[in-house]
Amino acid sequence: MIETPRSQYVQIGDLLRSRIKDGTYPAGSLLPSEDQLAKELGVSRVTVNKAIGLLRSSGDVKVRRGTGTVVRSLPRIHRDAQARYAARQEGTGAGEVEASKLNLNSRTEYRHIGKTSTPPAVAEALGLRKGEPSLLRSRVLYANDEPTQVADSYLPWSITKGCAALMEPNAGTGGSYGRLAELGHGPVRFTEDVTVRMPNNDEQRILELDAAQPVFEIWHVAYTAEDRPIEVCIHVMPGHLWTLRYGWDDQPAPKERNASPDRQ
Amino acid sequence: MIETPRSQYVQIGDLLRSRIKDGTYPAGSLLPSEDQLAKELGVSRVTVNKAIGLLRSSGDVKVRRGTGTVVRSLPRIHRDAQARYAARQEGTGAGEVEASKLNLNSRTEYRHIGKTSTPPAVAEALGLRKGEPSLLRSRVLYANDEPTQVADSYLPWSITKGCAALMEPNAGTGGSYGRLAELGHGPVRFTEDVTVRMPNNDEQRILELDAAQPVFEIWHVAYTAEDRPIEVCIHVMPGHLWTLRYGWDDQPAPKERNASPDRQ
Repeated sequence: MIETPRSQYVQIGDLLRSRIKDGTYPAGSLLPSEDQLAKELGVSRVTVNKAIGLLRSSGDVKVRRGTGTVVRSLPRIHRDAQARYAARQEGTGAGEVEASKLNLNSRTEYRHIGKTSTPPAVAEALGLRKGEPSLLRSRVLYANDEPTQVADSYLPWSITKGCAALMEPNAGTGGSYGRLAELGHGPVRFTEDVTVRMPNNDEQRILELDAAQPVFEIWHVAYTAEDRPIEVCIHVMPGHLWTLRYGWDDQPAPKERNASPDRQ
Repeated sequence: MIETPRSQYVQIGDLLRSRIKDGTYPAGSLLPSEDQLAKELGVSRVTVNKAIGLLRSSGDVKVRRGTGTVVRSLPRIHRDAQARYAARQEGTGAGEVEASKLNLNSRTEYRHIGKTSTPPAVAEALGLRKGEPSLLRSRVLYANDEPTQVADSYLPWSITKGCAALMEPNAGTGGSYGRLAELGHGPVRFTEDVTVRMPNNDEQRILELDAAQPVFEIWHVAYTAEDRPIEVCIHVMPGHLWTLRYGWDDQPAPKERNASPDRQ
């Protein structure tokens, strides 16, 4: 394999990044072609190609098919877990909270809404019997027409099958949690498990990612007051686009929880 | 550049993974050499090399200098944010909670404890004046002698300078938060911001990672009852080793919080 000295292509990468930062290559614009850059900078096309590879991995540019290499235009989006689910009570869909906060145009595109066979790991998380189906609500979210996440929400079919609103993209006031509450299964508690991995082929296509750009995978689980898991939503999100925010109050020590009478 | 057909090296990668899964190549053992594998499987060495590259990126094997390519031996570690900080009240260091739960040998190695100039982003998070120093407690955590994270904890020097225990690797009962409480600045609330990125050279070396293996970067901030940020701890953790767990109670709707008298 041809090996360019690491220092040179890293240097070219840094140079291109600084040109993006100082506005020489504005957000959303096309980068000059690799030939042009090689000529201007007096290096080989291979070196330019590897330098641009670095910028693709870090999300500073992306390759849009039929267009070319485009400078990143979306800012980093903050996802505050508590805030996003609390927002549904005020009529904002959880999926669109973050984009609206940044004055980005948000859009949700449903890929599938309907009965589906439950993937084994989801069945386990929902406590479903083997073979028990789910309602799948699968969607892609966009900000300024750029894909920001895929979200697949699974709900037990036995609970949701009678609810027409849950078969619609817009599930009504308070979203699908509003409908679950009306069905007597409103969520009161959430957990999220966050991992990071490389995107599969579908995700690369849908989220406009390279194979080398990591994605967050979040398993969001909603629980009822009876501690029954009532929804699993799997979010797949390009790592370079997002900062995840969580917060909590410190847990008092067990000793303090069971304070002895003389301390009261 | 020489391009092996994607399907072939991906197939070899899948084969090697299945051999790891079924115990042909046990956890912690050496993989056969690339030459041996190429010969056995009837493919080129380049193909084997690219296949092993896939396994390195996903964390299924790692290259140990002077040893060779070793099959992953650590299980995935779950980091439950609330639980890990609550555990300090019972005498377990936050850093060692997760490893002990899996019966792994945990170990903390301090790289630096002392006064340091505060990085600008940390100063901003701590609300420090320009030029105000911090106490840095920097450490590497290990499970079964494999590095699992780097954690750099910054505390305002103005508050911590008189506390001898905070200059020691073992800061005493309840760790550094115990000492902060004694100094009148005990934390009562935490936030964490989670991002993902590629490791820098130092992190690759310390955490035994390739350039293509993403790391979590967590900014953990502790707040006092007066809402003063009192600690920033930056955790850098190999993505393939960790699952991050967060949980919270749903926030009641504003309407319900201010319930009208007739609803009571």
